[in-house]
Amino acid sequence: MTILIDIRDDSPGNWLPAFTEALPQERAIWAADASESDLASAEWVLVWSPDPQRMRAMTGLKAIFSMGAGVDHVFALGEALPNAPVVRFVDPDLTNRMSEWVVLQCLTHLRQVRAYQALQHAHMWRQLPQPAARDVTVGIMGMGVLGQDAAAKLAVMGFAVRGWSRTQKSLPGVEGFSGEDGLTAFLAGTDILVNLLPHTTDTHRMIGRRIFEGLRRTGPLGGPVFINAGRGRTHVETDIIEALRNGPLVGVSLDVFEREPLARESPLWDMERAILTPHVAAWSDSRAVARNVARQIARHRNGEAFENVAEAGRGY
Amino acid sequence: MTILIDIRDDSPGNWLPAFTEALPQERAIWAADASESDLASAEWVLVWSPDPQRMRAMTGLKAIFSMGAGVDHVFALGEALPNAPVVRFVDPDLTNRMSEWVVLQCLTHLRQVRAYQALQHAHMWRQLPQPAARDVTVGIMGMGVLGQDAAAKLAVMGFAVRGWSRTQKSLPGVEGFSGEDGLTAFLAGTDILVNLLPHTTDTHRMIGRRIFEGLRRTGPLGGPVFINAGRGRTHVETDIIEALRNGPLVGVSLDVFEREPLARESPLWDMERAILTPHVAAWSDSRAVARNVARQIARHRNGEAFENVAEAGRGY
Repeated sequence: MTILIDIRDDSPGNWLPAFTEALPQERAIWAADASESDLASAEWVLVWSPDPQRMRAMTGLKAIFSMGAGVDHVFALGEALPNAPVVRFVDPDLTNRMSEWVVLQCLTHLRQVRAYQALQHAHMWRQLPQPAARDVTVGIMGMGVLGQDAAAKLAVMGFAVRGWSRTQKSLPGVEGFSGEDGLTAFLAGTDILVNLLPHTTDTHRMIGRRIFEGLRRTGPLGGPVFINAGRGRTHVETDIIEALRNGPLVGVSLDVFEREPLARESPLWDMERAILTPHVAAWSDSRAVARNVARQIARHRNGEAFENVAEAGRGY
Repeated sequence: MTILIDIRDDSPGNWLPAFTEALPQERAIWAADASESDLASAEWVLVWSPDPQRMRAMTGLKAIFSMGAGVDHVFALGEALPNAPVVRFVDPDLTNRMSEWVVLQCLTHLRQVRAYQALQHAHMWRQLPQPAARDVTVGIMGMGVLGQDAAAKLAVMGFAVRGWSRTQKSLPGVEGFSGEDGLTAFLAGTDILVNLLPHTTDTHRMIGRRIFEGLRRTGPLGGPVFINAGRGRTHVETDIIEALRNGPLVGVSLDVFEREPLARESPLWDMERAILTPHVAAWSDSRAVARNVARQIARHRNGEAFENVAEAGRGY
């Protein structure tokens, strides 16, 4: 049996060894190096922004595994998408990395890291007034597996936490909101907005001026903060830049962008109150991905359903 | 009844209102403004590095409340220390702030914040290999209330956590070590060393070259990291500087220093791999301190013992 690996801008050395180890019975082939008959006969494929022409040639697939939690890059194939279930990568390793990044960014803004760094640079010893975490409300948009884990960890750190999602979730210690009406109330009490929404037709360019202006301005951080660890195409970068320059935003942490890599000439790179990372919040460890794919294949062979199958209709 | 407030380098406006609110029955007086008879008749005093001469004049004290968890600044009074119990400030607010800072620093080193900041500065999009938290061991020296809270929160974030203390503590998910023999084994498996020890004759200048050379060098961060949130006089700054310049340390986060404020000419300010903050990790909120003192006084009036009384013999 064959598993193809079709991951844009990556190299086989990062992936094939992990699959050989986790799935010693299967032939793991780097898709760009595969023959026509390999493509046609493969049962499985692991993808990230895969090549449409190659995907069209994969006519025997039993599943398409995404390398990440998001599957927008798969549904973007449109008519080139083979007729097989699309399986999201949902894994404790990935979830934990995402929460690390989100908690790190929330603490960075709470504890005034950039201000203290400037003081260090100037050799200045000055203690700044420090709000308590419990007086700062983090609002998470998107309360799937990633949002729920981040919410729980932020609550452990002492933040007040609330969540907004398409369908209301109830989590201990996390105030839940949903729908358009819920959004206004959710934003009005949020000091740090964390985006973990998937990119779908509904969320496309959703987070911009209107959302930023709905956030609480009277909180202890001096104004609202926006953190995006989800998908860049859910936000509007010109609105982020404008809101940093002229309010209401006092800080942002962005791991994702409308176009990646972010253009070298983007004003964001040089904005003092912007913390940028290059889509590394939830790095997919190849061993963790390979273990997950192996478990999914084993489930299938035991007659069980795949876990975390995406729905084309809703887009995630 | 009178409560005096004797806090070095601070001003009455930061403290008196909180005490008037929490203890409306008591007279709160800024010690530097107190008359001789106020000093002699006061039952209570809240202190931080208090003036020895004034302390000698406080002959009617029932308790000496420290503004922080540490009491080295009280025992340093020596013969000027009045004969009254010394009460440490142990409070969920203070504990939470300390853990915020410790978790923030551990995540900052894990997630290569300074490296990504340099890339941002250069407008460069480059993804760095990212170890998982579970492959990084944080070792905490000092497993009192603060150490235990930090340990629990670091474990929630996914780090492997171990603790070293004078008497061995057992916490779920945290490997415990104690004593001189235990120290060697503790250090040999530690990637990020967090100091939360009190400053006593035993811990004075304890953390220097010998400790740094005992840390694990083969961990996923490329070398060991030292984080000090306890007391500056437990470490040796010349050894920290040397270990950053020539190994084995690859990074430090320091909130406390041998002398505070840190001298403007210290080389630490400009070291790229040193993160400095001006003794703000666990800022004592005046309202939280006043509430705590009010509760302790109420306990005393109900015939109960004070909580968190320090022992002069062990120094904390």
